Amino acid sequence: MEEQAAQASKGRRPSGRDAKRAARTARSHNFVPYITRKIPYYEVLSQEGLELLEHNADTILQEIGIDFREDPESLELFKAAGADVQGERVRFPRGMCRSLVAATAPREFIQYARNPARSVLIGGNNTVFAPAYGSPFIRNLDEGRRYARIEDFRNFVKLAYTANSLHHSGGTICEPVDLPVNKRHFDMVYSHIKYSDKPFMGSVTQPERARDTVEMAKILFGADATDPTTGRPRTVVISLINANSPMTFDATMLGALKEYARANQATIVTPFILAGAMSPVTIAGTVAQTLAEALAGMTLTQLINPGAPVVLGSFASSLSMQSGAPTFGTPEPALVLYAMAALARRLGVPFRSGGGLCGSKIPDAQAAFESANTLLPTCLAGVNFVLHTAGWLEGGLAMGYEKFVMDADQAGMMHTLLAGVDLSDNGQALDAIREVGPGKHFLGCAHTQANFENAFYRSPLADNNSYEQWEAEGATDMAKRANTLWKKQLAEYEAPPLDPAIDEALLDFIARRKASFADSNI
Amino acid sequence: MEEQAAQASKGRRPSGRDAKRAARTARSHNFVPYITRKIPYYEVLSQEGLELLEHNADTILQEIGIDFREDPESLELFKAAGADVQGERVRFPRGMCRSLVAATAPREFIQYARNPARSVLIGGNNTVFAPAYGSPFIRNLDEGRRYARIEDFRNFVKLAYTANSLHHSGGTICEPVDLPVNKRHFDMVYSHIKYSDKPFMGSVTQPERARDTVEMAKILFGADATDPTTGRPRTVVISLINANSPMTFDATMLGALKEYARANQATIVTPFILAGAMSPVTIAGTVAQTLAEALAGMTLTQLINPGAPVVLGSFASSLSMQSGAPTFGTPEPALVLYAMAALARRLGVPFRSGGGLCGSKIPDAQAAFESANTLLPTCLAGVNFVLHTAGWLEGGLAMGYEKFVMDADQAGMMHTLLAGVDLSDNGQALDAIREVGPGKHFLGCAHTQANFENAFYRSPLADNNSYEQWEAEGATDMAKRANTLWKKQLAEYEAPPLDPAIDEALLDFIARRKASFADSNI
Repeated sequence: MEEQAAQASKGRRPSGRDAKRAARTARSHNFVPYITRKIPYYEVLSQEGLELLEHNADTILQEIGIDFREDPESLELFKAAGADVQGERVRFPRGMCRSLVAATAPREFIQYARNPARSVLIGGNNTVFAPAYGSPFIRNLDEGRRYARIEDFRNFVKLAYTANSLHHSGGTICEPVDLPVNKRHFDMVYSHIKYSDKPFMGSVTQPERARDTVEMAKILFGADATDPTTGRPRTVVISLINANSPMTFDATMLGALKEYARANQATIVTPFILAGAMSPVTIAGTVAQTLAEALAGMTLTQLINPGAPVVLGSFASSLSMQSGAPTFGTPEPALVLYAMAALARRLGVPFRSGGGLCGSKIPDAQAAFESANTLLPTCLAGVNFVLHTAGWLEGGLAMGYEKFVMDADQAGMMHTLLAGVDLSDNGQALDAIREVGPGKHFLGCAHTQANFENAFYRSPLADNNSYEQWEAEGATDMAKRANTLWKKQLAEYEAPPLDPAIDEALLDFIARRKASFADSNI
Repeated sequence: MEEQAAQASKGRRPSGRDAKRAARTARSHNFVPYITRKIPYYEVLSQEGLELLEHNADTILQEIGIDFREDPESLELFKAAGADVQGERVRFPRGMCRSLVAATAPREFIQYARNPARSVLIGGNNTVFAPAYGSPFIRNLDEGRRYARIEDFRNFVKLAYTANSLHHSGGTICEPVDLPVNKRHFDMVYSHIKYSDKPFMGSVTQPERARDTVEMAKILFGADATDPTTGRPRTVVISLINANSPMTFDATMLGALKEYARANQATIVTPFILAGAMSPVTIAGTVAQTLAEALAGMTLTQLINPGAPVVLGSFASSLSMQSGAPTFGTPEPALVLYAMAALARRLGVPFRSGGGLCGSKIPDAQAAFESANTLLPTCLAGVNFVLHTAGWLEGGLAMGYEKFVMDADQAGMMHTLLAGVDLSDNGQALDAIREVGPGKHFLGCAHTQANFENAFYRSPLADNNSYEQWEAEGATDMAKRANTLWKKQLAEYEAPPLDPAIDEALLDFIARRKASFADSNI
């Protein structure tokens, strides 16, 4: 992984002028499996401020406690570990969760991809970009907004595979509502495996769906599913476990969490918070509560399987007083994000938050302002696993085709930002300044010639032509150009090779499992 | 000024629902004359890295030197101060510029407004937002793009006056091309004085136009134009002096710089750099060259009038390899900005850069992505004087009406971001968490009731309604809503009172001056 990490800072996206060439290049040169940052973190709070919020989180865990609903096993585990359990309410002695998590949860871990060159290192100085997650609708310029189908799901897996700036295939990119609720996880996981070779996420909507995910991963990885040195299962799936904020975990999420933790698969324990509804309206209150909830959930993973990879997640939005709807890209969630990232570092665990979040229904200026105001803090704060990097519209209700490629472009820019300032002799460029001198220009000088090709990030979607040329070419907005780009990318998509025997075994497993119980939309 | 500074962190913009009420509120409660940040700066380089770039700037000043064109007075001044002058080339002994600037240039200074409550403190921990500057064209949804007129100029002065998030009236907001080139400065300066009571910028296109600006300011401020304690002229005008990069200053800009410095008026010495054309294609090379050029120009202000307020400016964009056009909102200029802000702090002078820059021709997603990717670094880096905060389109060629109110909204968000995290007991909100407890919601709790009104930044332009409601209301994009908002703001605009005697004296001065020489478009 060290070599991959070393490459990360050199990441550049191609111009998009020739997607076919770019795709080939991607696989050989430009693709980095994840980013290793070379710029400092941005911190909004002092260490004293962070200690205060940790203290408050401990107060919440000790005084108020967390409810674990309909899950006697979890209650037993907490009790045995020293917690005070009254009914479904669990109160934790001050510091208990922190020390249990810090003792055994890994600071960083590898999630293996079926293509080893695409395995990701989650945690530390690294950033992994994954697509948006969970939308029932899709939107594009041609059809507007409609319910998502499995074909859309496959399209987004293909687009995520094509995007050099995205490192992960994601999970429930959109809900394939044309398939029965109790069987669609087979098709989703299969799509990730078949149409991409990047790492992917598992199903969490029922414990048995988590088990199906683990089974399919075992078929895919075969002997590679086990670490030959430790004999432990390798982490090949990462899954999203949301707390039912405030201060509650429900049986469904707990069931999935336990399945994955037992199988040594990674979980992201994420309090899902609309501040003002699920938490106080203040930043400091929201942060302390988020930390308390996440600590409780992460502790459970370590009680189930000490050492199981677990990520501290934070999803915080604020509530619109006018409409009661969540708002995105406003300053308050960014401040929560900066604080939570610092707290995760202090705890010594990987952190998930942020992405390209927005409340806008369409890929307009609102969507872009809000997304940029989320993605830039995401990167400066040091988020390790960025869910919702690309495609998010309408507070997560819709997955946008145009928005997806726009966000992937922005993620590409973040590769360049996170690479920081080159202070080598070539970066200092004093000889170029000597060569050119006052009143001349640098366009033709030797240093420019040698460096221009990779000097600046080049967006495939930004129009920087003259006004006259832009007008002659149809006076397009970015959304229109994005519409052209995603269609081109889908048309030129080529699937990564998959061993036919594995493919057959997977299809056989799915067919048998699907036949073993009736369709249902619950 | 201390009281104003103390207020700054509480800055919030109103909802925009009722502009009239908002305008009244602004004048009583919500308006802060500038922002005093409560969050740390973001630094991309270590102190060692910054020292290296300072060393390189000194190497440029010493070895290569700067050309001062057609200005014997400046050459004499530099020679007398110890520089090596050969023809128009001035080479500076290592450290000379830095020590001259550091010795006498103020770390921060007040620019007085005719309404004392709107005077701004430029430098230190403070941020002042000013409108965009210099566009020959305007754009709005109704008319598209056309040449700007004085009526547009007045409109933008009114919109900047109306915007609580903007602290400054700016300068050449757009070029009134319906007026003769050699007389339009009278109408521009008069518009700033008449239609706003915020501080403003002066003309720089000829030395005599700078003198006219200073004369008009003297009429406006009367006895207040002089500091009663020191007897020195108060700083009531700030003006933009661009270097003719690379490493050149021309006679026009030098003439204006000298006029203003002699009159103790502020200048912003700004190398205007499209990296790849006017500087090397690398960040470190661009930064060192920018610092060298700015140091040379700032030194001249201190030789003319030690103690004259001067701001270190940086305007850096990168060049599109495809079109040769400048690009904005890409990562490289943001990295230049972070480095330059840190270098200005080390030098101990106020810093100008950033804003809401974009290359897009229209207020679409491209414009918003690029603007956010500039404005957020602007604020995190600690820019003191933010020119181009609102209205910028098409690389500065067009001033957008819709873009203006969209950017002003974003500037409002920055007030909240820069206020940071409230760690008071109310901010920590532990009692609210105790009151609500697991599984309940915070909507009705006492803490939420007490804090909701000012809890979250509220955008007047973001649509956060349900999809159904948004569709029922016309499925608008942000640009369409911005079109409605700027028209409403102009319709409800009320001019701040201006002493009729001063108004008459100004009009009389302008009439006499205009009659004293023929119209010309040079």
